[in-house]
This record gives sequence, structure tokens and C-alpha cells, in this order.
Amino acid sequence: MRTLKIVLSYDGFEFRGWQVQPGLNTIQGTLAAGIERVTGERVLPQGSGRTDAGVHALGQVASCAIASPIPGSNLLKALNNVLPPSTRVLEIEEAAPDFHARGSAVAKTYRYRIFRGDICPPFLARYVYHYPFPLNVDEIFLASDRVVGRHDFTSFASVDPERGANDSGLNNIRTIFSSTWHAGESELVYTVRGNGFLHHMVRNLVGTFLLVGKGTLTPDDITRILRACSRPAAGPTAPAHGLYLVKVEY
Amino acid sequence: MRTLKIVLSYDGFEFRGWQVQPGLNTIQGTLAAGIERVTGERVLPQGSGRTDAGVHALGQVASCAIASPIPGSNLLKALNNVLPPSTRVLEIEEAAPDFHARGSAVAKTYRYRIFRGDICPPFLARYVYHYPFPLNVDEIFLASDRVVGRHDFTSFASVDPERGANDSGLNNIRTIFSSTWHAGESELVYTVRGNGFLHHMVRNLVGTFLLVGKGTLTPDDITRILRACSRPAAGPTAPAHGLYLVKVEY
Repeated sequence: MRTLKIVLSYDGFEFRGWQVQPGLNTIQGTLAAGIERVTGERVLPQGSGRTDAGVHALGQVASCAIASPIPGSNLLKALNNVLPPSTRVLEIEEAAPDFHARGSAVAKTYRYRIFRGDICPPFLARYVYHYPFPLNVDEIFLASDRVVGRHDFTSFASVDPERGANDSGLNNIRTIFSSTWHAGESELVYTVRGNGFLHHMVRNLVGTFLLVGKGTLTPDDITRILRACSRPAAGPTAPAHGLYLVKVEY
Repeated sequence: MRTLKIVLSYDGFEFRGWQVQPGLNTIQGTLAAGIERVTGERVLPQGSGRTDAGVHALGQVASCAIASPIPGSNLLKALNNVLPPSTRVLEIEEAAPDFHARGSAVAKTYRYRIFRGDICPPFLARYVYHYPFPLNVDEIFLASDRVVGRHDFTSFASVDPERGANDSGLNNIRTIFSSTWHAGESELVYTVRGNGFLHHMVRNLVGTFLLVGKGTLTPDDITRILRACSRPAAGPTAPAHGLYLVKVEY
């Protein structure tokens, strides 16, 4: 058996999230079906994490063990021939036998795109969160600095149906290496890199930063919310379709 | 009654073309439903031309007469609130009573996007024609010059189900003002401006230019094909989803 590291990009709008579910169109199920069609092997590729319905990926990573000797470059072409255009395999590498897309990850980068113009072009509607209302961008920039470092992110963690209740018995401590906004011509883009992320964590951070931008909260409130370790202390969950899993590092 | 000029952008992938058809999702039908919901008036907006299923618009123009006194800027906001995100109204202007989006048009510009990379990003799959195979781009550039000017474009006109058979009794003479290709980093983009276009004309031109790029035809063959006035003389119809109606001039 070989262990493969598969790098994927997908348009999350077309799927009911990553994880395979009977009768639903999921990325994991689509990838498994593609691998079976090409190699004849039934495997369930493991992702670096489950992306929610609507969340996109520029560089999701999946791992799986297969027996087929087909070279990675041929497998890549064959998979892209059978997968829908909404899912593309970008790279396939041979990995160490103990490689696991989730367990071996040391850092992940997410991006969140907010479209600021009055009229959102139809071609972007699936790929950005349209928020044309006034925002104090400088305050948002200051707020995003507050989450850098090692913190308990319980306040920014939605209850994870898989992982069980969001209680204090779980380790919700994560380290954020960088947390920055970039204001482009028509978009406001948040990029965050950390050693791991809790359920809905990036979307909850963005929803809370937007409250800072509106003046409902201040940057100091972000520090207070982190310390509260209580989900109701933070802001709402920003919509899924603005979010991208950019990169997973090993 | 006022006559309105409505400038629209839409993601053609979401629609079965422009023209209203019972039980099908069309742009004309969607716009008419939006106008009725906002003004209470049942009107059928007339487009500058019918775009086919899958064809996008950056600046389609529609005209209609309505009685409602609601100012254009308010109507624009109200329409964008009720229309799906795949259709956006970009401008609404008061027009002369005899203005007709189709009859008053003096020039139209179309664009065709070809993605040249090996792997087409999922986010572009609906918006470009993925053609990763070798092409002689210089020959394509030369070929596109041959259609500039006043020509009978019968060879590039597909049979129009609305207009009747593509026979010699119909006037298929059109004037092309400019016909140019631009080679970007990962895309090859064709832009053509003319006083009018026949059914599938831009897609048939692109399909034929690609045969020149492959070496099946030469730029001289384009001149020969124009003179033949016979659809079978030209190349195949390029896919709809690479095509954009960019602008209509009056």
C-alpha cells in the first residue's frame, strides 16, 4: 500500500460540505467516487478538516492509502477527467506511511472575502460575502491583532456536532500565528494562519470583527471576549460562502 | 408611461437563456417577475438580443415602458433586492419614448474567455472555456483580422430557430469594427465589436479561429470561408459558457 497526499481545490457552493453523507453531494464522497472509478479501490480519503457547506478550498489536503501502482501524475490527470469541474486535484504526492492529512498538519491558513461595492457582480456572488454597509476598517485591523498568540478560543467555537458539546472539558486552546486584513479596491480580505481552528472559528471571528467595524464593539472587547470563554460573548457567524481554506502545512 | 433603459449583468450558467419560456428559468422572465413584484406592473422587457443558455452578460440592455413614477435609482435598489444574486441591475435610465433595446442599438461588444492552464480552477469553470491544448496564437491573431469590415457572415451563422432558416433570402451582412485577441497570463481572450451579430456568430468565429490555432485552417481560409456563405465551411460552435455580452451602444 502507498499513502498519498492529495491537494484539492473546490467550489464549496456545489457541495453539502466535506464529509460523506448518504444521498448528499459532498467533497469527500465525490473524491472517493473518483478514486474508485480510476483505481477500482474503495477508500475514504481523510481531509485535513471538514469544511462546512458553502466553504471553498484553494488547497485542502486529503490522505489515503491505495494499492494501485498508477503514478501520481497519471492519477492526477485521470481524477480530473472524472471529477466534476467544481473539484480539481492540484497535486498528488507520495507520503510517509504514517502521514494523516488531519493529524500531521502543523498549520492552516484561511481567507475570508468581503465585497464592499454597492452592487455585487453576479460572477462573485457565490465567492464573497456582500457587505456594502459602512465599516471602520482601522478598528477592524486593530481588533484582528488581538487574537494573535496562544488563546482559549471557546468564545469563537460553535458547538461541533461531531466533536460533542462545546464544554470546558475540551481543549479549545489554539495558537494564531498571524491575523491580518487587506483592503483592496472593492474587497476587504481577512487572512488567518494558526496551528488549528475550532468549529466555525474563522467565521465567528469575522462576524465579531464586523461588529467592531460597525462600532458595536471595540478592539478591547476582543480581548474581553477571549477571556470570557463563552460563545454568546462573541458576535454572529459570518456566512460560509466568503470562506476559503487556503493552505495546510505539514 | 415612461420608457426605461435597464443595464444588466448576469451569470448565464444559472439560466436557460434570455427569452421567456414557460416553466424555465430565463433572464427575461426573472427580470419581468422582479419588475412586477416592485411596481405591480406586468411588462415584458425587451433585450438588445437573446443570449443563449450559458452565455453571460456584463452589460446587457433591456427596455420597457412602465407607468410607475418610482425614480430610477430607487427602482434599481428595489429590483436588486428581489432579483437573485445571479442577476444584477447596474443602471436604469429614462429613455426616449421610441427607444428599443434591440432596434436602437448601433454596436455591440462580445468577449470570449479561453483558459489555457492545465488545471482550470473550480471558481472559473462556469466562466471560461477550458482549452489546454497547443495553439499557434500568432496565427489566431492574424485570422481574427480577416473578419473586420462589412461581410456576409452566413458561414458563421447557425440556424436561428426564431428567425427561420438560414437561407440566402435573409440579410446576413454585418460590419465588424474590431476583432482582437489578448493573451494574458493564463487566458486567451477574444473581443469583437460590430453593428450586429447573427445567431451563434461569435461562438462560430471562436470555434473556427481555434481550428486556425490548431493548424487545421490558415488565416487565408477565414477569407475563403466568408466568401463561401455556407455554414459547413466554417468550424464548430465554441461552448456558450466562455461568452460574455460586454456592452451595447446606442
